[in-house]
Amino acid sequence: MMTHATFDLVNAFAVLERTPATFRALLSGLPEAWTTPNEGPDTFSAFDNLGHLIHGERTDWIARATIILEQGENRRFEPYDRFAQKRESVGKTLAQLLDEFTELRAENLETMRGWSLSERELQLEGEHPALGRVTLEQLLSAWVVHDLGHIAQTARVMSKQYREAVGPWRQYLPVLDR
Amino acid sequence: MMTHATFDLVNAFAVLERTPATFRALLSGLPEAWTTPNEGPDTFSAFDNLGHLIHGERTDWIARATIILEQGENRRFEPYDRFAQKRESVGKTLAQLLDEFTELRAENLETMRGWSLSERELQLEGEHPALGRVTLEQLLSAWVVHDLGHIAQTARVMSKQYREAVGPWRQYLPVLDR
Repeated sequence: MMTHATFDLVNAFAVLERTPATFRALLSGLPEAWTTPNEGPDTFSAFDNLGHLIHGERTDWIARATIILEQGENRRFEPYDRFAQKRESVGKTLAQLLDEFTELRAENLETMRGWSLSERELQLEGEHPALGRVTLEQLLSAWVVHDLGHIAQTARVMSKQYREAVGPWRQYLPVLDR
Repeated sequence: MMTHATFDLVNAFAVLERTPATFRALLSGLPEAWTTPNEGPDTFSAFDNLGHLIHGERTDWIARATIILEQGENRRFEPYDRFAQKRESVGKTLAQLLDEFTELRAENLETMRGWSLSERELQLEGEHPALGRVTLEQLLSAWVVHDLGHIAQTARVMSKQYREAVGPWRQYLPVLDR
């Protein structure tokens, strides 16, 4: 069945709290041959995906949710820097990034639990610099999808290392040409 | 850098041995609202993805590698049933599938380690029912990519549950329209 679920706070938490362990299971201890290549200019390696998620934990999701919840005069979010990790990850190991992401995510979910969000609060709005008015519920839904998108992207960029190595199998492995 | 790696047995193992734990971290204990929906007729839910991987462990990768290594008269592989899990997973829980996949994968990697594959053996050929002549190296590369493709697919099908819930964010979340 192809259904679209409505947002559910418990279910959203269930995904958000699993993402650090998913990245750890996939990437921890993996040779750099898998974690450092990307898909071309301005694309993310597995390592970059993780750095990007860390930047989101520091500057995006909770910061934006806070702006919405405060309902101050100016509810406009700061633009998000999609390439901040190019600077911020310099000199760090993948193991460090995994620890950092795990810690920040746990703190952020703790913060969110502390809010005990009501249905009314989930419908409060902020202003996205490009997308315009968005609700807290949409923000939290986007956080969940953003996690899942970067899990998919990380697996995809890794798979492309073997685009040639699979020979004629390429036509059966659509992930290689996404 | 956009590079394509040549096949490497140690690196291939590194991915193959991480896949069960990756699925466990992503899916274990998750509400069925995430694990049972699919993307429409003849597509896979997260649960189906796992069942499909289990079927591959039982009937595909090692069976085909064995045909290649034996170099018998008939080196033609059995066709792969992409929907076998519809039957085989009936009545099983996701937790059971996670255990089953973990166990089968560990056994299969143990079998493969026992082979101590040489560079010469990696170039031996079998016959794919549709793709024609393929080498053992191509088969093992396809196994790795197949794993990564199903990790990406699982994250993608889950994300689509929130395609509507993200509101205007949809345009920034390409995983929702893949």
